Parts: sequence; structure tokens; C-alpha cells
Amino acid sequence: MQTELSTRLGIEHALFGFTPFPAVAAAITRAGGFGVLGAVRYTAPDELQRDLDWMEQHTDGKPYGLDVVMPAKKVEGVTEADVEAMIPEGHRQFVAQTLAKHGVPELDEGEASGWRITGWMEEVARSQLDVAFDYPIKLLANALGSPPADVIARAHEHGVLVAALAGSARHARKHADAGIDIVVAQGYEAGGHTGEIASMVLTPDAVEAVAPLPVLAAGGIGSGAQAAAALALGAQGVWTGSIWLTTTEADLHSRALTEKLLAAGSGDTVRSRALTGKPARQLRTEWTDAWDDPAGPGTLPMPLQGLLVAEAVSRIQKYEIDPLLGTPVGQIVGRMNTERSVQQVVDDLTAGFERAVDRLNRIVGRDQ
Amino acid sequence: MQTELSTRLGIEHALFGFTPFPAVAAAITRAGGFGVLGAVRYTAPDELQRDLDWMEQHTDGKPYGLDVVMPAKKVEGVTEADVEAMIPEGHRQFVAQTLAKHGVPELDEGEASGWRITGWMEEVARSQLDVAFDYPIKLLANALGSPPADVIARAHEHGVLVAALAGSARHARKHADAGIDIVVAQGYEAGGHTGEIASMVLTPDAVEAVAPLPVLAAGGIGSGAQAAAALALGAQGVWTGSIWLTTTEADLHSRALTEKLLAAGSGDTVRSRALTGKPARQLRTEWTDAWDDPAGPGTLPMPLQGLLVAEAVSRIQKYEIDPLLGTPVGQIVGRMNTERSVQQVVDDLTAGFERAVDRLNRIVGRDQ
Repeated sequence: MQTELSTRLGIEHALFGFTPFPAVAAAITRAGGFGVLGAVRYTAPDELQRDLDWMEQHTDGKPYGLDVVMPAKKVEGVTEADVEAMIPEGHRQFVAQTLAKHGVPELDEGEASGWRITGWMEEVARSQLDVAFDYPIKLLANALGSPPADVIARAHEHGVLVAALAGSARHARKHADAGIDIVVAQGYEAGGHTGEIASMVLTPDAVEAVAPLPVLAAGGIGSGAQAAAALALGAQGVWTGSIWLTTTEADLHSRALTEKLLAAGSGDTVRSRALTGKPARQLRTEWTDAWDDPAGPGTLPMPLQGLLVAEAVSRIQKYEIDPLLGTPVGQIVGRMNTERSVQQVVDDLTAGFERAVDRLNRIVGRDQ
Repeated sequence: MQTELSTRLGIEHALFGFTPFPAVAAAITRAGGFGVLGAVRYTAPDELQRDLDWMEQHTDGKPYGLDVVMPAKKVEGVTEADVEAMIPEGHRQFVAQTLAKHGVPELDEGEASGWRITGWMEEVARSQLDVAFDYPIKLLANALGSPPADVIARAHEHGVLVAALAGSARHARKHADAGIDIVVAQGYEAGGHTGEIASMVLTPDAVEAVAPLPVLAAGGIGSGAQAAAALALGAQGVWTGSIWLTTTEADLHSRALTEKLLAAGSGDTVRSRALTGKPARQLRTEWTDAWDDPAGPGTLPMPLQGLLVAEAVSRIQKYEIDPLLGTPVGQIVGRMNTERSVQQVVDDLTAGFERAVDRLNRIVGRDQ
């Protein structure tokens, strides 16, 4: 799986893996792919520093990247407390009622909420970048589109390529015009924030919209056949995320959640605003149902919803409250039925890719 | 584009084209694909007979098929009048108000509604089959899943393969167990009735669920790259529909509608219950917005909704009321930007397919 982009980055397979776990990101890179560490969960710069140190020690000098969540537009002087104050009391009550209904215990006194949304705030993302540019990262990806112009310039000064997620050809073009290097075209079937256009249509649309800039296809990709499909559509590589959640190197801090992912079918996800206020695909649970119920108060806009539910999500995860327990994940969850090592996932995917190409050669009437 | 299934059917390309227009279906077959004529708009058996006679004269002895809309479960003794009587008065008023708001004129006195839903009723579909089995059709497809067992048996007696549309692996398996021959896995991005699972995930799921039965991939396919993606995912062919709507042989009876399709982007469709009561992807219009508006009365279940809106849809189409004018179409509408002949679409698709395979061979490191 060699494309212009994989050659440029010096990786063996045009396979990019996004993950919040350093152990997974490093293993993807060691296996010949390109590991991208998600930074949204780091609120203190020294936590990120510690994990990037670890990445350095475990990637054999091979390239890896960082994924931040940074809005292109800056909102001046707004603190987390200001945002907290904008949350209506009725919504707080709805959270409390929904948790009480399922008997979800409180966190221990003084215990910090493990699931936090503060990484979404620009000042936090910027403090992460101050740390990250001290490391030899090769790619900076932004989950909320183009980063601000000064961040793109700073990345380029450090020889770091900039990637931005897009859900439509128009967004992809906008990101390209902002000066980014790679578009990640994230289809409807993807886990996390996603638009309504499916990968089969979005990938070629994005490729055409930003050519000759490279596009990575995201959404619905976990097997070699799916990678072959994405590359047939013109992508220069695949951007995967969900598939790594059930690898043996991943640590979801909840056996119950891992089991839920292994058992879920492709129809068991929902695109809901419950987690962040923007539509994000995740496991469908009684928690997402409560927020998506027309009889409920509905969700708040980003970043209010994320702040509103952060503690609740931490409690649900800590106490593994099964009917409410979920996570962002794509429709590919239906194929995540066994725990494999990262190396095994990479081996299966690259072997499946070759089989798919063999199959197409037979269909087109060529012998190999 | 040769697969086991295309060889079995004796066609040059594993490209199936569904269309309500005999001229398009015949041209697809003549071009080496497999034309499938949609029968839902025929209410009188002699209309279907006339068009199948025409097909016979214009397909050079090459194979073609018929698509009907037949529920697997029979509702005994229910007439169209019985169903009409179940429609609430408030819904009729909402239709009248919405039409009045846009100044939609009445049909002429005695003029029959051109857009009809009666083909959805089992007795109509059965009368179509009585006609169809007198012709050498090679495929009978059912848009509502498996046809009743006696219909499958009758098709097999006539040497006709039976195909059924499925939106999930579970449905696909159910159809296979009912004794059909081909599953059409219809992804979320498809025009018309469709589930929530996108083709990138649905196709391999369906292939695995019904193997060794062949699967045709539907949804999001209009180019050779998309056909290559679908076949990489394990499909034995592609099932296309939307892409033919803007061919020169198609006659939508409305230049305004053709222009709307040519101008629409991949984000201009919506999966709505407005037309039939079941979620069907179509152009997003003020008509679909009105039905999808939480402040409105909402849609009725199938077949009530279709009967309720039939006359209104005919009036909107006849008078080309632009804000309300729509049609079922998939997300691929974004690539339908020029009018081409059917032959040209087939040529472009098969050439694009070869280019996509060439590209994959380069990526996998093989010279041709």
C-alpha cells in the first residue's frame, strides 16, 4: 500500500491510525503505518509531554503525528467558567435525573472528571502545540477543520504536514485554500464528528475538489477490502480510528465497554449530538436516546454540551453503567468482533488489500 | 467487468441499471449492461405489456429484468379505497395548505394522477407478474425485500433469477433464507428506500452474510472508481439507478427537474418519509422540509403516505413548482452534472473502472 503520500512520509503502508492511546499509536507506526495520537484528552501540557516522550522511545525513529481539536475562529477572552455559566439549569437537571434513573453513583470527593472536553478550547490546544513542536512529529491533524493560519505557518516552519478533517467537498476545498497539506475526508459512516455524505460519494468528491492535494479516506474502513475501495476512489491513504479501539494495546479502562464494542453490529451506532453538541457517531445507548428524544430538552451547542455532560460521562464509564455506556465509534464496529494486536490488524488489512486487488484484476480480465 | 454473475447472465459488464424508462433500460442492455425496468408506475397490465413489447424489440436479444414492489406479507382483502379511508383529515388539509401556499394549480377535470402508488399494492404487483412471465425476462427484483414464496417459485419455474433489496446484513440473510438468488445491498447513500448503513460497511457485511450467494452493491455508484470500490468490497456487480436519470434517453417529463438534478450537489438530498411513508432518499425540497418539520403533522405509514401525496406530487411535477419539485435520487446526484447518452455512461464507467484497477496495481507495487 504505497502512494505518493506514504512515500513522502517514509512509511511502508498508506495506513493512518488515529487513537487516544500512545501504546496503539506507537504500535501502528512500528507496524509500518502512521500512528496519530489524539490530544483532546490532555488538559495539562506535562501529561502530553510525558506521552510524547514515551512515543519517542517506542517508535524506533519512525514517523507519527498528533491530532488536536482547534476551532479556526478564535473567541477572545472566553474562559471555561464563562462557558459553564451559559448552561441552562433545566439541562443540568435533566443530566441529574437521567443519572439518578439508572442509579449512577457520584465520583469520589475531589476526584477529577476523567472525560474532559477542555481540549476543545483553543487555548488548551495551543498549549498542546507548544509542547508538540518540541518533538519530531511529522503530521498535525485538526479534527475541527483548518487550524488558524498562524498554526499552519508554525507547523510548516517545523516541517510538519497539516491535515484537516472535512465532511463535504466544499469544506475540503476551504481547508485546501487555507493552506493545509492533506484533507481527511470523513464519511457519514465514521466514528466521531461526521457529516451526512457517505465515503463512497465523499472520497472522490473531495479528491476532485482539492487535487493535486492528497486526500485520506475516513469512515467505514477496517479491512483490506475497504482500504482497496478507498484507494480505488482516489484516496492516497486510509484514515482509520474505530478499528484500533478493540486492539490488545488499547485500554478503554472498562472491560464492559470493550465487550460492548466486540458485540455491537454495524446498525448499533447513532449520529448524535449527545456528546459534544455536534453530530458525532457513537454507540447507541439509553444515554444517546435520552438526548435524541423529542420529549427531552435536546442538546446544547458545542462546547456547552461537552461541558454539561463531562462529569456524567466519567461517572457512567467509571461505574460501567451498561445501558448508558458508550463511546464514539463508526459503523465498522460490526467487524470488530475479536481482540487483535495492532500488528495483526495491520497484517490482516494489508493482506486483505492485496486479495482485493487480485480480485479486481480477475474481474478486469487480467492475470497477475 | 466480468464476474461469475455477469457470466451466468451472459452480459459484458457486471453493471445493473434500474430505471423506470424502457428506453433507458433497453439502452443499458444494448450497451452490455443489464437493464432493469421499474414496474411501480404501471397500474394497468396492458401498459406494462406495451412497454415490454417495446423492450423485446429494442434489446437485440440481450437480457434484461423487471423490478416490482411487492410486500412479502399479504394483507387479505384490503382495497385501495379501504386504505384511502384510513388517512386522517388533518393530513389531507396539510397537503392542501402546503400546495395552496405555493399556488399549485389543480389537475384538469378527469385528469388522472400521473404519479401513482398503486403499484405498491400486492394485487397490482401480481397482475404485473402475470404479464411479465410471458416475456423472456432474466431477473425479477423486488424493492421491498423477498417476494412471497409462490412468486419466487414461479420465477424459478420460468428460469428467472430473483433479486431482493436489503439494507442490513440481517435482512440480506433473511432474503437468502427465503430462497432468492441475488441480494442487492442498498447503502444509506442510495436513492429511494434505504437504511442507515453506508455501502462501504454494508457491502462486505452482506457479502459475508449470504455467501456464496452473489451480492450487488447499490448506493453511491455512478463512476468507474465507485464500481471498482464496490467490487473490491466483494460485490459481484453494481446496481445503479440515479445515474441514469439525467441520460439523454431518460424522460422525466420536466425540464426543470432535469436541470435541478444537474445542478444538485451531493449534500442536496435527504432521507425522508415524505414520499412513501418509509425513509427514501430524494432531493431535499420545501415539500420534504414540510413533512420533516417537527411542527407539521408528520408522515403516515406506508402505504397511506403514498396515497395521500400521489395527486399532490403529480400537480407539483405537472406545473413544475420549483421549490417543491423533487424525485428520489442518491448522493451520487452531485456527479450528475452533464447529460450523457446511456452508452456514454457505460463507456465512462467501464473505462474508469480499468483506470481504478491500474491505480490499485501501482499502489500494491505491481506493474501490469
